[in-house]
Amino acid sequence: MTHKDLGVAFQGERGAYGEAAAIAFFGYSVQFLPYSDFESVFGAVTDGQADRGVLPIENSLVGSIHRNYDLLLRHNLAIVGEIQIAIAHQLIALPGVTLADIKKVYSQPPALDQCMHSLTQLLPHAERVATYDTAGGVKMIKEQHIIDGAGLASERAAIIYGMNILHADMQDNAENYTRFVVVAREPVVPEGEAKTSIVFSMDNVPGSLFKSLAVFALRDIDLTKIESRPLQGKRWQYFFYIDFIASQHEERGRNALNHLQEITSYLKVLGSYPRGV
Amino acid sequence: MTHKDLGVAFQGERGAYGEAAAIAFFGYSVQFLPYSDFESVFGAVTDGQADRGVLPIENSLVGSIHRNYDLLLRHNLAIVGEIQIAIAHQLIALPGVTLADIKKVYSQPPALDQCMHSLTQLLPHAERVATYDTAGGVKMIKEQHIIDGAGLASERAAIIYGMNILHADMQDNAENYTRFVVVAREPVVPEGEAKTSIVFSMDNVPGSLFKSLAVFALRDIDLTKIESRPLQGKRWQYFFYIDFIASQHEERGRNALNHLQEITSYLKVLGSYPRGV
Repeated sequence: MTHKDLGVAFQGERGAYGEAAAIAFFGYSVQFLPYSDFESVFGAVTDGQADRGVLPIENSLVGSIHRNYDLLLRHNLAIVGEIQIAIAHQLIALPGVTLADIKKVYSQPPALDQCMHSLTQLLPHAERVATYDTAGGVKMIKEQHIIDGAGLASERAAIIYGMNILHADMQDNAENYTRFVVVAREPVVPEGEAKTSIVFSMDNVPGSLFKSLAVFALRDIDLTKIESRPLQGKRWQYFFYIDFIASQHEERGRNALNHLQEITSYLKVLGSYPRGV
Repeated sequence: MTHKDLGVAFQGERGAYGEAAAIAFFGYSVQFLPYSDFESVFGAVTDGQADRGVLPIENSLVGSIHRNYDLLLRHNLAIVGEIQIAIAHQLIALPGVTLADIKKVYSQPPALDQCMHSLTQLLPHAERVATYDTAGGVKMIKEQHIIDGAGLASERAAIIYGMNILHADMQDNAENYTRFVVVAREPVVPEGEAKTSIVFSMDNVPGSLFKSLAVFALRDIDLTKIESRPLQGKRWQYFFYIDFIASQHEERGRNALNHLQEITSYLKVLGSYPRGV
């Protein structure tokens, strides 16, 4: 398969941050396949409509995207890479529209929240309208020719839809990054520094989480993330998701996973992949 | 202050699950004070409009209510109790309306999700409409006299608004529980079995989370919950929220907290309180 034939699925319209993450990881010469929701991205890769899926897993301000943690457990795809991108929201309107014309601002609720202060300063009287996607809001303004509205989305969304940036970098906090994982049907064997993502559950006994972390601490394996999600049907029991710096294909990582297997009631390796920068 | 004068704030309209939690904790003879959002509940208790706030912190199916974790850190209130209640969604409509009349179902998105299978079975063609609150949807159907709509909310919402239950217990999974915390301006000293909630952060060094859990494991103190939230402005660093079974006023709990203080860069005790049943 040449690179050109690689189909990369992401959630949102063309110009969404998922597409920016796909470009950062694969470059421009792949096929970009937009899907309306995260579940459809998992489905598209599973049934071969797409070769890779790019899914947001964590934002540095709002935290984990829990829905995608749940979907990683439910689907049988491997994590084969990760990428983080800076999130910079541009205020985007139809050409010719000025700031004074804007009565409504359209975007995804987290993006509206991340620009709350800037919006209050710049457009104190504008109504905020929730859309299902950042770029989708810009697309709607274009298609419905909304002359009193602006969207908050990536610079790329402005370019794709032939729109104008009224005000750049609207995000209140510059440290706004989203980490994406790349999923595929087949796992990879990473070279260089690797990260491994796992999910496990344990019988609800005192000290069980401590014992599971000991598996890594005793081998000087660094953890970069821990996340808990409810175990459906078992009240106040949890699945734990952990990312650690080692590969399942090297001895240290393999030993840690074997040790963890002894003390968990469920363990799934989501993938070992090159650590993103 | 007599019990009657105790003002208890919760999010949502009268008949919301927050009110049911308040009743389960305080009984019926307090003043119920509905607020539109969680932040307003924190604000009402802080400035004395209310004496207690009741806030959902975790649902057994959808997981933690992360917004309230963030607000607990930002406000200076003490957790003084916890309560868990079973969530049972009733399909509620105006008196005289039958199942065949229903074209729209109004409720909060998580409630709609929790009844997805039942709704598909019972009302395959009905549109699902998001409201900001379960009981708020029922109130709206009443006030706007919507004769082709039904809400998904508590039995109490049906009673308060003089509405009819068309179909009982719509939730797909019976193990649907929500845990609420009770907040107040002043902490309590609990008697009997106590739980303590804390939040802390550490310098980002390998094994730091393991060391912080060792503080509890070495003293045979059971953890019931761990949750991580992003540390704003420090990329991929976290606040950890932990609940453990001990009081900060007993020796074991105090020793653990002193030990934890040695290894954390930030530590806040949110409260020790009687463990809920």
